[in-house]
Amino acid sequence: MQVRPPYKIALVQMAMAAEPAANLDKACAQVRQAGSQGAKVVCLPELFRSPYFCQKEDAALFSLAEPIPGPSTEALGWEARRSGVVVLASIFERRAAGLCHNTTAVIGTDGAILGKYRKMHIPDDPGYYEKFYFAPGDLGFQVFPTEFGNLGVLVCWDQWFPEAARLLALRGADIVFCPTAIGWHPDEKAAHGAAQLDAWRTVQRGHSIANGVYLAAVNRVGLETPAGPPGIEFWGSSFLCDPQGVIVVEASAVREEILVDTVDPGRIEDVRRHWPFLRDRRIDAYQGIDHRFLDVER
Amino acid sequence: MQVRPPYKIALVQMAMAAEPAANLDKACAQVRQAGSQGAKVVCLPELFRSPYFCQKEDAALFSLAEPIPGPSTEALGWEARRSGVVVLASIFERRAAGLCHNTTAVIGTDGAILGKYRKMHIPDDPGYYEKFYFAPGDLGFQVFPTEFGNLGVLVCWDQWFPEAARLLALRGADIVFCPTAIGWHPDEKAAHGAAQLDAWRTVQRGHSIANGVYLAAVNRVGLETPAGPPGIEFWGSSFLCDPQGVIVVEASAVREEILVDTVDPGRIEDVRRHWPFLRDRRIDAYQGIDHRFLDVER
Repeated sequence: MQVRPPYKIALVQMAMAAEPAANLDKACAQVRQAGSQGAKVVCLPELFRSPYFCQKEDAALFSLAEPIPGPSTEALGWEARRSGVVVLASIFERRAAGLCHNTTAVIGTDGAILGKYRKMHIPDDPGYYEKFYFAPGDLGFQVFPTEFGNLGVLVCWDQWFPEAARLLALRGADIVFCPTAIGWHPDEKAAHGAAQLDAWRTVQRGHSIANGVYLAAVNRVGLETPAGPPGIEFWGSSFLCDPQGVIVVEASAVREEILVDTVDPGRIEDVRRHWPFLRDRRIDAYQGIDHRFLDVER
Repeated sequence: MQVRPPYKIALVQMAMAAEPAANLDKACAQVRQAGSQGAKVVCLPELFRSPYFCQKEDAALFSLAEPIPGPSTEALGWEARRSGVVVLASIFERRAAGLCHNTTAVIGTDGAILGKYRKMHIPDDPGYYEKFYFAPGDLGFQVFPTEFGNLGVLVCWDQWFPEAARLLALRGADIVFCPTAIGWHPDEKAAHGAAQLDAWRTVQRGHSIANGVYLAAVNRVGLETPAGPPGIEFWGSSFLCDPQGVIVVEASAVREEILVDTVDPGRIEDVRRHWPFLRDRRIDAYQGIDHRFLDVER
């Protein structure tokens, strides 16, 4: 029995400037920095190239979108090749006039695009008006094989859906990366902030436990008010947890940081031998899980 | 829009004696006690009528099994009627010669059996040799409507499987009850005990969050050595969490306790309005989740 060797990954927790060019420059610098620290896979936060524009619905903001391949994947492809790393880059993808997606490009160590994942679950909540900007993904839940390991990607709202994480585990993911843009409404923070952050962390740790995979949540940080006050205070707190849900490394709620730590397929092997959930799934009895609801007369 | 009123539930954390009759007597007394504290639904731990016999494989132990209806449901039915409560009673069910299940009977306030749930996911691990004793359940994942609320049941190993919790939410559960028998191998406790307990709690809280339901885990407590030392130290720690995964009440790891607290359908309504995961599920894209694994050539 052969298990692949451990590899290092980097979670880049960033604060965003107003200017896309500045954010792209910073992202490139962070990829270099992560590579110099030994990371082989580097994940940027969701939509790192701009402030979180979905705080309002404004057709002018579609101008932020770009094709894939495009300027961002080109710049990051260059960095990926230079540092010999895989880069996960979350991009506002313009696919056609009036058709955009929230897409994560997976860029290989040769600088070429290995594949892309289009965010499948699109939120629409006060301050997170994503259904206005993004068509739901049409590429399914994918795992990207690389020379280091098998990488699954979910994006933000996806991270609340157990079916998504399960499908990535069934497709052989070692780790699920979750580029994210989540934070507190400043006027809710005192009453609900701690419970919200804890629920976010807990549901993702739960995916790790139920599936025996690593999970890396990569969030932005800082207060952004593109729609005026009060804005959103992005809560950082990026973390890596192991296949038993144990938090290996975690960032602060307020600062930019690069977390570099290890994914060890041997640890997955060990945890799953002791907790063999994949062995015992009742695949004969999950009918209905692809229904919206199973209405019962009462 | 009408939301049903809150109702109180009780989680009975018990330590088991060697004699089944003593455990049944205690269970009946605990149901009365819970009823006197205002509980309307009372959940006993998994297989409360005996020590956790699955620590060894011994055909003689099939003598512990009983039919449903049978002596345990009769005694508890009497208590249910007397106290006007619903009782969830986990029983080693003898269905036919050589065919037993790990079954939870749901007993109504009139003392009659409302329905039963046969544990679907059956473990087989050192000290938990359940595949020897229990045939996998054949009644699916069920929600039991009662005059108080809609009750879902999962049993122990089931509680690690997100599909099971999801199906109960889709069938309208307010709360998922998880009668359980889980503990530490004493020789693993120092190195792994804290992580194991935390993973158990976390994956279940994750189900609550992902589905917007309450969840009540009801465990036994105490060291049991029916197969000789070192035995299993059942870790108690029964808890109720709310639809955001917040722990409402939690028992100790070492003592018998009855936890009585409230399930509020209004809280479910509120949490799901703010975190509308059921609205956004990609039911068009979960194909493959009923497969054992989605093998990929690599």
